[in-house]
Amino acid sequence: MKIARYEYQNQLAYGVLDEETDELVKLFGDPILAGIDTLDERVPVADVRLLAPVIPRSKVVAFGRNYAEHAREMGNEVAEEPMMFLKPNTSIIGPGHPIILPTQSQHVEHEVELAVIIGQVARHVPAGQAHQVIFGYTVANDVTARDLQRRDGQWSRAKGFDSFCPLGPYIETEFDPREGVIGAKVNGETKQLGNLNQMERTVGQLVEYASSVFTLLPGDVLLTGTPAGVGPLVAGDEVVCAIEGIGALSNPVTS
Amino acid sequence: MKIARYEYQNQLAYGVLDEETDELVKLFGDPILAGIDTLDERVPVADVRLLAPVIPRSKVVAFGRNYAEHAREMGNEVAEEPMMFLKPNTSIIGPGHPIILPTQSQHVEHEVELAVIIGQVARHVPAGQAHQVIFGYTVANDVTARDLQRRDGQWSRAKGFDSFCPLGPYIETEFDPREGVIGAKVNGETKQLGNLNQMERTVGQLVEYASSVFTLLPGDVLLTGTPAGVGPLVAGDEVVCAIEGIGALSNPVTS
Repeated sequence: MKIARYEYQNQLAYGVLDEETDELVKLFGDPILAGIDTLDERVPVADVRLLAPVIPRSKVVAFGRNYAEHAREMGNEVAEEPMMFLKPNTSIIGPGHPIILPTQSQHVEHEVELAVIIGQVARHVPAGQAHQVIFGYTVANDVTARDLQRRDGQWSRAKGFDSFCPLGPYIETEFDPREGVIGAKVNGETKQLGNLNQMERTVGQLVEYASSVFTLLPGDVLLTGTPAGVGPLVAGDEVVCAIEGIGALSNPVTS
Repeated sequence: MKIARYEYQNQLAYGVLDEETDELVKLFGDPILAGIDTLDERVPVADVRLLAPVIPRSKVVAFGRNYAEHAREMGNEVAEEPMMFLKPNTSIIGPGHPIILPTQSQHVEHEVELAVIIGQVARHVPAGQAHQVIFGYTVANDVTARDLQRRDGQWSRAKGFDSFCPLGPYIETEFDPREGVIGAKVNGETKQLGNLNQMERTVGQLVEYASSVFTLLPGDVLLTGTPAGVGPLVAGDEVVCAIEGIGALSNPVTS
């Protein structure tokens, strides 16, 4: 099932997508905390403003160099240990919201990624049991100021600016992350194209690694690395990140 | 004024310290969001369990190499640009709570730091106006797995383990961060000793830098770097981090 978070008539709500009618069936509350409890209220998707489907109360845990071809295009090998970093929840925006280019950088790039949404308090979860703590999946763009990433050492600035973590449009709760086309287009032109089956470490292995360090909380987001083909974004661009079976996340770029 | 967050009779509350009587005067709600609104209820500090005085809804923004002598002891120079990284809110513990040594590391160290508590939504704040968005100050221990910090490249694991950010005991709302003795003792022996006036960048400059990247939210915490003298912690140790004018934050270390 596909779940959206949206604004309608100045109210924030969660809803389940009815793919037949393209309507959202309103939910009683945050489905990650309150479960899937539908109300007798429907609204066409076209009439709402979609928001990021989740804003974690704790953290976005991201992984670098998890697709060999992308690691090579950056001049790196796949890391022996997962390359883990954090993005703040203030970097999250929803579908259609603008990615704002910061004045500190001259070179901002897109990175399409599969985002894993945690549904349970999770600590020391073996890879084989990771599915039990996962609520669902969505599409992410791990926007990166490549010049600052190279200069800073720590990536918190380069990957942490406001608007540098578009998420959406929907959380798909029944997704199988082992396979599926993943790609990004800029102004209609394909830039990144890969398959989830090219990940060096599986979603389960990443959940195991992250949960061996941090307690993961419901709503926490894991970003699982980007395939080859990353490239620059400039003001006026429209970037679309998509994963087969989840959907397409489109954002304009502004200065 | 000194503000605590505490547990008493299974309830969580905030209170203002009456230093004459060593009692906490209960507050109506979270003072960062609700203001200082005292109730007619008092409890001796000795009868409560002090908690971390704040758990940010968004982020702990930390700065490395902000005291020249500590940068040198680590074999580094003071960074030309601030060395900024993030710690997750799941790493926060309160006074007296144990620092748990993770099995992944053989070398965990203490780092006493001045913690700045943000009180307002803040973006692009000039250094000279930083005081307007600061709610107060407390003591932090930026616990670090030194071996993993050296190995990982990104510091999210080395500095992000559960229990690796003790905070407390109080938020001092009237503190002047320009001067004051800052130090850490392990098992009663002084290890770190410095003065806040040795910071390479002032609190105002750090707020300016962080808020030029992220929106800072009420309750966000900035850690301002550690003075020289960092050293190892082993199971059974008791580490006390203290700042003159704020207080002493004591934590046992366990495996």
